Amino acid sequence: MNALPKINLRPEFLITRASHVVLHVTDLDASQAFWADTLGFIVTRRESDSLYLRGLGETAHHSLVLQKSQQVGCARIGFRVYMDQDLDLLATHLKEMGVGTDWIDVPYQGRTLRTTDRVGTPLEFCASMDVVERFADKYSKYHGAAVQRFDHMQILTPEVINTAQFYGSLGFRLSEYIADDVTDEMLFAFMQRKGNPHDLAIVTNNEPKLHHFGMLVSEVRDLFMAADVAASNGFGSNVEYGPERHFGPSNAPFLYLRDPDGHRVELFTDHYQAMDLEVPPVRWDRSSVVGLGGWGTEPPESWNVEASGYVDDL
Amino acid sequence: MNALPKINLRPEFLITRASHVVLHVTDLDASQAFWADTLGFIVTRRESDSLYLRGLGETAHHSLVLQKSQQVGCARIGFRVYMDQDLDLLATHLKEMGVGTDWIDVPYQGRTLRTTDRVGTPLEFCASMDVVERFADKYSKYHGAAVQRFDHMQILTPEVINTAQFYGSLGFRLSEYIADDVTDEMLFAFMQRKGNPHDLAIVTNNEPKLHHFGMLVSEVRDLFMAADVAASNGFGSNVEYGPERHFGPSNAPFLYLRDPDGHRVELFTDHYQAMDLEVPPVRWDRSSVVGLGGWGTEPPESWNVEASGYVDDL
Amino acid sequence: MNALPKINLRPEFLITRASHVVLHVTDLDASQAFWADTLGFIVTRRESDSLYLRGLGETAHHSLVLQKSQQVGCARIGFRVYMDQDLDLLATHLKEMGVGTDWIDVPYQGRTLRTTDRVGTPLEFCASMDVVERFADKYSKYHGAAVQRFDHMQILTPEVINTAQFYGSLGFRLSEYIADDVTDEMLFAFMQRKGNPHDLAIVTNNEPKLHHFGMLVSEVRDLFMAADVAASNGFGSNVEYGPERHFGPSNAPFLYLRDPDGHRVELFTDHYQAMDLEVPPVRWDRSSVVGLGGWGTEPPESWNVEASGYVDDL
Amino acid sequence: MNALPKINLRPEFLITRASHVVLHVTDLDASQAFWADTLGFIVTRRESDSLYLRGLGETAHHSLVLQKSQQVGCARIGFRVYMDQDLDLLATHLKEMGVGTDWIDVPYQGRTLRTTDRVGTPLEFCASMDVVERFADKYSKYHGAAVQRFDHMQILTPEVINTAQFYGSLGFRLSEYIADDVTDEMLFAFMQRKGNPHDLAIVTNNEPKLHHFGMLVSEVRDLFMAADVAASNGFGSNVEYGPERHFGPSNAPFLYLRDPDGHRVELFTDHYQAMDLEVPPVRWDRSSVVGLGGWGTEPPESWNVEASGYVDDL
Repeated sequence: MNALPKINLRPEFLITRASHVVLHVTDLDASQAFWADTLGFIVTRRESDSLYLRGLGETAHHSLVLQKSQQVGCARIGFRVYMDQDLDLLATHLKEMGVGTDWIDVPYQGRTLRTTDRVGTPLEFCASMDVVERFADKYSKYHGAAVQRFDHMQILTPEVINTAQFYGSLGFRLSEYIADDVTDEMLFAFMQRKGNPHDLAIVTNNEPKLHHFGMLVSEVRDLFMAADVAASNGFGSNVEYGPERHFGPSNAPFLYLRDPDGHRVELFTDHYQAMDLEVPPVRWDRSSVVGLGGWGTEPPESWNVEASGYVDDL
Repeated sequence: MNALPKINLRPEFLITRASHVVLHVTDLDASQAFWADTLGFIVTRRESDSLYLRGLGETAHHSLVLQKSQQVGCARIGFRVYMDQDLDLLATHLKEMGVGTDWIDVPYQGRTLRTTDRVGTPLEFCASMDVVERFADKYSKYHGAAVQRFDHMQILTPEVINTAQFYGSLGFRLSEYIADDVTDEMLFAFMQRKGNPHDLAIVTNNEPKLHHFGMLVSEVRDLFMAADVAASNGFGSNVEYGPERHFGPSNAPFLYLRDPDGHRVELFTDHYQAMDLEVPPVRWDRSSVVGLGGWGTEPPESWNVEASGYVDDL
Repeated sequence: MNALPKINLRPEFLITRASHVVLHVTDLDASQAFWADTLGFIVTRRESDSLYLRGLGETAHHSLVLQKSQQVGCARIGFRVYMDQDLDLLATHLKEMGVGTDWIDVPYQGRTLRTTDRVGTPLEFCASMDVVERFADKYSKYHGAAVQRFDHMQILTPEVINTAQFYGSLGFRLSEYIADDVTDEMLFAFMQRKGNPHDLAIVTNNEPKLHHFGMLVSEVRDLFMAADVAASNGFGSNVEYGPERHFGPSNAPFLYLRDPDGHRVELFTDHYQAMDLEVPPVRWDRSSVVGLGGWGTEPPESWNVEASGYVDDL
Repeated sequence: MNALPKINLRPEFLITRASHVVLHVTDLDASQAFWADTLGFIVTRRESDSLYLRGLGETAHHSLVLQKSQQVGCARIGFRVYMDQDLDLLATHLKEMGVGTDWIDVPYQGRTLRTTDRVGTPLEFCASMDVVERFADKYSKYHGAAVQRFDHMQILTPEVINTAQFYGSLGFRLSEYIADDVTDEMLFAFMQRKGNPHDLAIVTNNEPKLHHFGMLVSEVRDLFMAADVAASNGFGSNVEYGPERHFGPSNAPFLYLRDPDGHRVELFTDHYQAMDLEVPPVRWDRSSVVGLGGWGTEPPESWNVEASGYVDDL
């Protein structure tokens, strides 16, 4: 492979983790029935046009924000930085790269920096959110898939290597990637900040979109229970793919579901730790992964071709 | 539905449970790698041309007998009766029905009665086997799918209702069935003796065959582990269908695998109890089951059309 | 061992399984918070002075009946017979043994035969109950321990061998027992009808009582979830013993809890099959079981000395 | 609380995670039977006097090193730094603090810095180890508890607050602590670098020792399987405490075992994420934790009073 993205291994600012997504949906009641009643998200707050949700193990005010809108799509994907000062350092860095930034007011978040990556993915960064109660030990609140916490996003881009280069300049490290066996072209780049396989998966596509975001559940059986409760609640056809195992990158058992507006979420367990710098990025040949290498079925066509487009902020 | 099989609710003889199958295979080493090393069967005994296997929780000498042969197939499916005297009562009953029987010598089993059902399914009945150690509490022997015990068989027949009638005359009760929405024709009959949904599933097909036999595992995760260990041991493509859940009959999480000769096994968890006589057989319309009613994928074509033919005893 | 109870291996009547218990409690709201909200029982019906509960996998109207009363205790333990005619055959048998019987009216049950065993344990037998919906596949109803079905009772008696003899005459088979190493006195007798290790455990004690009844859950994690939800719902101190594993008889992972009135329930998974007649009863020496033989802690004193006394019917 | 340790939130050097321990044992065969055969550690390398072990999900050469010695004890506990240059920056920092350091040669590790904390806990830091194959997806290697990876250590110290101050100066952040209700004295300090509740737990004791190290397993059932396989392999009495749940700090299901020389390991699942700086350290009153607050038994006396003393390097 002659073209791995260059990683800024010691940036002056620290991005700590993938944090949240903001999605536009058409019907908050339907959304709540899916995300809260079925997948087990906790409703931190419901307002007239917004629904703020978090996992059982989260103390941040929200990891999923749903906004009522005529136009379905993803408005922003969010990352956390370590300290407030990291926002300024990051802003300076982005300006030096020629990337435009804005400071925006976002409810229940600290100072928030808004920007886009090279292909237009809408990003926001903040150092803090309002702190709410962690419900990990409130077992009477466990139901459905009992989602624990936000883990990662998978974005689509027409320029995988250039996009990976952008995130590499922000300190994201490459843990794994899938390349074309013959051309060596990078097709999937898995990049991480928090020490597990990815905070951000970057995947080739003709236009930039959000493919899915990933939520951690505790056990394989939660994947089954998610699908079962979905079926019981009338969301059986929203179960898109799995429960199966990712062969190749991440190795995780997974289940993909679509919400009432078509937004996709991955539930998964058991990511490995990816911290030590002496471990080189793992390369997977496309041929070894497409054939699945293990067991299970190919993803349905919808998984390959459908994703959430980006929309303007309300 | 105007044609449920008549059940002999109080037969003079007692059949207690589905017990074992005898399969012909081409390579005992390959079979052992699959059944013992991968699925976790215990090898009770290996002889030059035979392999006797059992689950961790079984005290009977064998629930799966593999015999080396040029011709792959199923030689017999086996049931247990309560006492030795039940064999004689059963033999008399079969003769009265005009069904031929033989007494055969089978190693490690008590006196064994050989017969066939109306469509030629080769059956054997015995009251006892050699008793071996139950390994349920020998956790160092747990590996792979850690199969616990034999549960049921699914046979194919060109005459579902007549075949069900035959087993009904032996005291098998109908717990569930699938019928054509329009014609009311019975397509799947699930019949039981031991108080869970089925010891014997009877399914429509143009010729009689053994579709699969079912082994109980403890937890949903064992289904995943079965597939994972299969993949690690080179049997990834032998994982045929699942892990998913049966919507409609049985409601069980399942995984189907094929052995190196194509014989099919179902691993499953969690059958419900089916003992009380006031509960009528559950009817499922074909349309509600074919569309799955819940979540998951349709079975692959192989699951619909491939099965083990019957072969003569060695 | 010179004194195993004699078993009536082919009784003219058929008892099929342990079925239900009737308990007197002081506060139905508190009971419902424990049994339904915490353990996951389904409320079939609540009346002014009675609460009828069942597990998710049950079609019988009730497996646990709670009646409001000043006096806490167990009013009856219940078994199912195969057919209505078995009740008459059983009544005749009991009369021939010199045991008194009554026919009683019990709501939501078929004709019910009331009697006591040799030491005064209040028993009832019926052939049917009202049929209600099985909720095994209604996953939105799963919560807490998600109990699936009634399995067994453990009764205390001053005369283990004589009591076992009584049940043996009714066709209960001895699957396992614990005996004094030196005197051979039988201390625990595990007897079964439905083909798993026990429908009825009979244990030595200076007076007759109900020690606990057992409910099946699906997976080991349900035992943890039961304790966790109990703690979240204010019932942390009601978790009495476990999750641990029974070494010796049954081999099952278990959790014991006490309800608000002190009645004890065992949640467990994974009983083995006990059907084949060639397998002799398993003897465990008291010394091997008391020392636990495996891992875990001794039961707390309460588990050894507390139990539900029997009370008169309301 | 007036005395929280001061944390160096932006140290010039980066310690990334707790990494490994070096223990002296008397019999490598017995150790291997316990750690590899029972808990499922992978043997990376066995030499005449040393055994190098790792979890299934680890690419580092070792997370547990056992050295044959007459004197049982812990020789060193190890942490990873981000890059080789961090070792020099750390060394400078320690010297400025007046703490002695040494550079030592350790097989299969990069350059290694040796030091002690304020109370004499023997520490080592390295930036890299030899890279070996990750076996997370080699399911045929899963057995016993199937330990996945090293997570944390718990050390004992006569001076909790001063010890926590030392690690705070190295950038360890305080996630949770237990304090005396009345005196506010800090009794347990849970400090972390990698974003879960702790890399290092610091606990009050009259002399410095290693209480245990913690290994992550995937599911609650692995805790049961660990205890079960331990019992099957003759290590039943080595199961010290659990499976239960930690109420208060970490909230994790756990199982503690002792190896043949008395060294203690904790198996656990499901730590929450602890990354966001706006979340203050969680204080638990001793009274709320000692009484357990949830369910389960108090730790056995051995857990409270026994631990591994420190020994000189061989």
